[in-house]
Amino acid sequence: MAGNSFGNIFRVTTFGESHGRAIGGVLDGCPAGIPLDLELIQKDLDRRKPGQSAIVTQRKEPDQVEIYSGIFEGRTTGTPIGFAIHNTNQKSKDYGHIKDSYRPSHADYVYDQKYGFRDYRGGGRSSARETASRVVAGAIAKQFLKGIEINAFVSQVGTLKMEKSYLELDLKTAEDNIVRCPDQEMAVKMEEYIKAIKKDGDTIGGVITCVATNVPVGLGEPVFDKLHAELGKAMLSINAVKGFEYGSGFEGVTMKGSEHNDPFNTDGSTKTNHSGGVQGGISNGMDIYFNVAFKPVATVIQGYQTIDKEGNLVQTQGKGRHDPCVVPRAVPIVEAMTALVLADYMLLSRVNKI
Amino acid sequence: MAGNSFGNIFRVTTFGESHGRAIGGVLDGCPAGIPLDLELIQKDLDRRKPGQSAIVTQRKEPDQVEIYSGIFEGRTTGTPIGFAIHNTNQKSKDYGHIKDSYRPSHADYVYDQKYGFRDYRGGGRSSARETASRVVAGAIAKQFLKGIEINAFVSQVGTLKMEKSYLELDLKTAEDNIVRCPDQEMAVKMEEYIKAIKKDGDTIGGVITCVATNVPVGLGEPVFDKLHAELGKAMLSINAVKGFEYGSGFEGVTMKGSEHNDPFNTDGSTKTNHSGGVQGGISNGMDIYFNVAFKPVATVIQGYQTIDKEGNLVQTQGKGRHDPCVVPRAVPIVEAMTALVLADYMLLSRVNKI
Amino acid sequence: MAGNSFGNIFRVTTFGESHGRAIGGVLDGCPAGIPLDLELIQKDLDRRKPGQSAIVTQRKEPDQVEIYSGIFEGRTTGTPIGFAIHNTNQKSKDYGHIKDSYRPSHADYVYDQKYGFRDYRGGGRSSARETASRVVAGAIAKQFLKGIEINAFVSQVGTLKMEKSYLELDLKTAEDNIVRCPDQEMAVKMEEYIKAIKKDGDTIGGVITCVATNVPVGLGEPVFDKLHAELGKAMLSINAVKGFEYGSGFEGVTMKGSEHNDPFNTDGSTKTNHSGGVQGGISNGMDIYFNVAFKPVATVIQGYQTIDKEGNLVQTQGKGRHDPCVVPRAVPIVEAMTALVLADYMLLSRVNKI
Amino acid sequence: MAGNSFGNIFRVTTFGESHGRAIGGVLDGCPAGIPLDLELIQKDLDRRKPGQSAIVTQRKEPDQVEIYSGIFEGRTTGTPIGFAIHNTNQKSKDYGHIKDSYRPSHADYVYDQKYGFRDYRGGGRSSARETASRVVAGAIAKQFLKGIEINAFVSQVGTLKMEKSYLELDLKTAEDNIVRCPDQEMAVKMEEYIKAIKKDGDTIGGVITCVATNVPVGLGEPVFDKLHAELGKAMLSINAVKGFEYGSGFEGVTMKGSEHNDPFNTDGSTKTNHSGGVQGGISNGMDIYFNVAFKPVATVIQGYQTIDKEGNLVQTQGKGRHDPCVVPRAVPIVEAMTALVLADYMLLSRVNKI
Repeated sequence: MAGNSFGNIFRVTTFGESHGRAIGGVLDGCPAGIPLDLELIQKDLDRRKPGQSAIVTQRKEPDQVEIYSGIFEGRTTGTPIGFAIHNTNQKSKDYGHIKDSYRPSHADYVYDQKYGFRDYRGGGRSSARETASRVVAGAIAKQFLKGIEINAFVSQVGTLKMEKSYLELDLKTAEDNIVRCPDQEMAVKMEEYIKAIKKDGDTIGGVITCVATNVPVGLGEPVFDKLHAELGKAMLSINAVKGFEYGSGFEGVTMKGSEHNDPFNTDGSTKTNHSGGVQGGISNGMDIYFNVAFKPVATVIQGYQTIDKEGNLVQTQGKGRHDPCVVPRAVPIVEAMTALVLADYMLLSRVNKI
Repeated sequence: MAGNSFGNIFRVTTFGESHGRAIGGVLDGCPAGIPLDLELIQKDLDRRKPGQSAIVTQRKEPDQVEIYSGIFEGRTTGTPIGFAIHNTNQKSKDYGHIKDSYRPSHADYVYDQKYGFRDYRGGGRSSARETASRVVAGAIAKQFLKGIEINAFVSQVGTLKMEKSYLELDLKTAEDNIVRCPDQEMAVKMEEYIKAIKKDGDTIGGVITCVATNVPVGLGEPVFDKLHAELGKAMLSINAVKGFEYGSGFEGVTMKGSEHNDPFNTDGSTKTNHSGGVQGGISNGMDIYFNVAFKPVATVIQGYQTIDKEGNLVQTQGKGRHDPCVVPRAVPIVEAMTALVLADYMLLSRVNKI
Repeated sequence: MAGNSFGNIFRVTTFGESHGRAIGGVLDGCPAGIPLDLELIQKDLDRRKPGQSAIVTQRKEPDQVEIYSGIFEGRTTGTPIGFAIHNTNQKSKDYGHIKDSYRPSHADYVYDQKYGFRDYRGGGRSSARETASRVVAGAIAKQFLKGIEINAFVSQVGTLKMEKSYLELDLKTAEDNIVRCPDQEMAVKMEEYIKAIKKDGDTIGGVITCVATNVPVGLGEPVFDKLHAELGKAMLSINAVKGFEYGSGFEGVTMKGSEHNDPFNTDGSTKTNHSGGVQGGISNGMDIYFNVAFKPVATVIQGYQTIDKEGNLVQTQGKGRHDPCVVPRAVPIVEAMTALVLADYMLLSRVNKI
Repeated sequence: MAGNSFGNIFRVTTFGESHGRAIGGVLDGCPAGIPLDLELIQKDLDRRKPGQSAIVTQRKEPDQVEIYSGIFEGRTTGTPIGFAIHNTNQKSKDYGHIKDSYRPSHADYVYDQKYGFRDYRGGGRSSARETASRVVAGAIAKQFLKGIEINAFVSQVGTLKMEKSYLELDLKTAEDNIVRCPDQEMAVKMEEYIKAIKKDGDTIGGVITCVATNVPVGLGEPVFDKLHAELGKAMLSINAVKGFEYGSGFEGVTMKGSEHNDPFNTDGSTKTNHSGGVQGGISNGMDIYFNVAFKPVATVIQGYQTIDKEGNLVQTQGKGRHDPCVVPRAVPIVEAMTALVLADYMLLSRVNKI
């Protein structure tokens, strides 16, 4: 209710500020008996962590997760899984310049207005550092969802848009390049473009596409907790996200019903999939796919004018070590949130019938 | 938890099938002391109701709301507001053709899979008839939100897209035409287009834009219940919605940080508003605006092939009285859901500080 | 969250004031496919209704429930069940004497303080009339819980306490007398005592005992939502309840561990049942039994001094038609709340393991 | 929903097993701006910790809390407060004897049934060790509740019952003896009795009474989330609790309405307080007081027969270092849970009116 929990049954609560002692969380409602491979958790954290390539922030954080509870003899026990990632690289002095002034298009101003003051170090709670906790919980969700495949990848950077359908590509190859785009030619262009943006001290937006396959029929809780509505909320809760569309999305607006409808095959599957795997808010067994729009990171390494707490105009300059484009590191976050929604809705679907 | 409630404190629970005895709901958590104008509730219901113009379904339903509790001497009492709308025009026989077969891109198939069987009359619970209950609750929310203005309007039908910014238009004039588009010239084109689509027995998608002004700074509950994430979920929970974007949205992807950032004025407002009135998930006092994409209605009055419960191919034809384009009637629904989110988050913001 | 919903998955939300148009509710999360016998619902309502015998209030209310949704062809559909009971016997004038003064040990004063004003007619929302909605939902829960037996009965009125163990009695015979006590001799004494109390214009307290048998092992969600904790909350939420104890209860305090521990039989059952069917917050398969203490009804038909809204002392007199002892009519309410808890926890237990 | 969170807005989620790496939790919804004295938190932990006196378990655990987030420059920030207590004294070998057999009246059997297996070390999640996390959260709640006094104390051990009313005693003096009973003479008797019980290798039950003063009028969310119902659930969720009563409680059953009703003073206070500070589920400004019954600890240091996983009878003996009587150490836990309920309901009461 106070905003730091996600999920109904399979439910994660996170805590932690960018430059506090630790971030972490509690995953409650995870069923007992799941064999947990801790290395898979760390692997997803490594995909998200800073410093992993030339096109992401060069901060160094090991992001080593410690699990405190809920696992016994290698399996989940059904009790809450508490975990923490200690912050080790807290250069608080880097952020002195934002203590008294509000960076444009950051959360500085609204946090001060809402709470009366704020932990200004590195963005505090509004920093995307918080998403590391989501990745931990999501990695556990993935192991519960055995058999369901979730693959997210970068499909657009600025105006560079992958034109191929995801069906023509091997999505696993997204991990073969540092942009995380499964179209290798496009990936090269995107990488070059991000490097140029970085050189200018500027930033650029992007789109992540996510595909979930082998999702069983029947997930979704109409009328308010429709599967795609919860997925949408999950995605929009990620830092810098400005939009969400699934299936035909905004393009579908221009189609006629006679074109848009997905005809059935005799096994209940459909010949086309404009629906994006969800009908009436309930999964229909087809691939679930959706796009997530990320704005350009607000921190630009350029001089700019802004205001301080008293409303005076001040001249300042972006500092710190930030990402020129957030999407390559956001891929595992999108997957994690998708896994959390699916795990929760898998459990919810167990109570539909007598 | 079972999907039919929305909101945390200001919380509506709805019930009802398209062709049951009644639809309705309970609005809990509405603060005491709000003077309620019942005619304003009915007025919003009338904006949503079928049969109101030449471009919507010609079903006739009076949609008269009865309020059972929670109001005394013209004011809310702080106790739950129970209400019902009796169904009067239940031509169940119209729907005999869908009893045993699954209409493409409808919820028939997934409801049967999820629950084992379904109330097939008129779509049952998956019918957009349910949204009338949302309009009732939203109309009460609007009266609680006195001072905040919420205006939704049709900004696109098929490929006909309003190019003017909402800032150039008087949004109240959207009600002057049956499309509910505030650009009167565009409205004429849209109306003609919808009529042509209807004549073909086909349907078309559209976009609704919603603008909320005078929203106070500080609404939003990061990290998961960000204001725009909850708005996104609210919109995606409406029948036929395929996408949501706020502020710069999907377009923002192509912008650089140096262009996208909104510079501050000395009073804390911003010179531009790519942020769409929300920073870090918290309202910043600027206009909140967002777009909602609706797919073409699935029911087309044309012959088509589909499958029955046993998986046999059957030839059938759309019947019933359906909307050629859903957006004109969905305008008050978008407003209602926006009002419900804002009312809930207004209350949540009361507990932020000591 | 605003107090008018109960349950996690199997969740009822109620509305309605004593003298409003109707009371009712929505039951969400009820699994699909339950064959519902509507007469059983009405039967439980009749056990609760006023005017049923010489020792209860002589108000006449038919308490006829109308079900609006969620049932199709005699079975639950998995969608929310909306229902209402219209108020027919609203002698509002009977309550003019409480409009401006606060009855001692009633909720009049606190409602005015909390909400700024109140619907004073017949106690408004604080009237036990609201519990009729619980009985409807509970009667549906009972039908879901097929195989589990829930029997509540009166075990104490004033100082008249049934000394026999419930194991020695046929609990079904509680319905054979108007007190609802399965010890027929004691029932006679209790009935006479209540009649004498009534003649004096006074009221008296009582205890209801409830026994649930055939409850499967494994219901309960530690550490906060232990089965007995939720049962306790359910009971304490009923009007006039002052205490709850399960198993050995307050008596258990005086026992030594060596006496109190329940030794196992080889099948996992126990030789004694001081635990009351719950270990560590989880059902263990033995009978669940507990006691619920009800205070004497506050409305006495005697003159008394009290204060008005301005804090002036005023002399007044209890009027209206009230119960001299609340427990006979509260028996079906205790059963209903027990059924609601068990139904919810049955569903919750489906998600414990992979 | 999965049982490890408590509270609506002011909401704690706990994790941790008796012999895992750490226990801890997340407190979400704590308002910003509370100056936090960390020593007061540790002080309450010390009142709960083992080894503090001759009548409690002699295990040694420092129970040092680490706070990871949510506090900046000495004040709460409105963001979640994550904390952990590392387990240092994990003599797992002490518990080998319970790995394969089920201790009577412990949770061993039901955990195995519910989850398929269990962390058997020291009771795992069912150990009262978990309550240390509640004490941390409760100690923060107390600091938010500045001005409200919460005093719990031991009022009964076995049949030794304090006969004086709490109004005759200085409740603060409960901390002057190791039993935590404010009646010093009775405390001596209780201490001797517990020592004798301990010598026998047996255990005994007890009652804790809790009094909250200066609670404002208006806390409580009828009809289900009445203040006393939530307090009851909070208490019943504590290990070993078997009963809860407030105000006149079970004794009130024997009173007549004319005796039990609390007459008003002209300022809205009442001359008597059989209501225990709560009317109709809402605080009325009078002292809130209630009793909590604890059963004798199940672990007795005596030989006993029980069953193993296969249902074979086995002879075994209680080992480990356990409390002969749980109430002295449970006093701060009762206070903590009371503080959590009051803090949550203080926040909820902010949204009652426009």
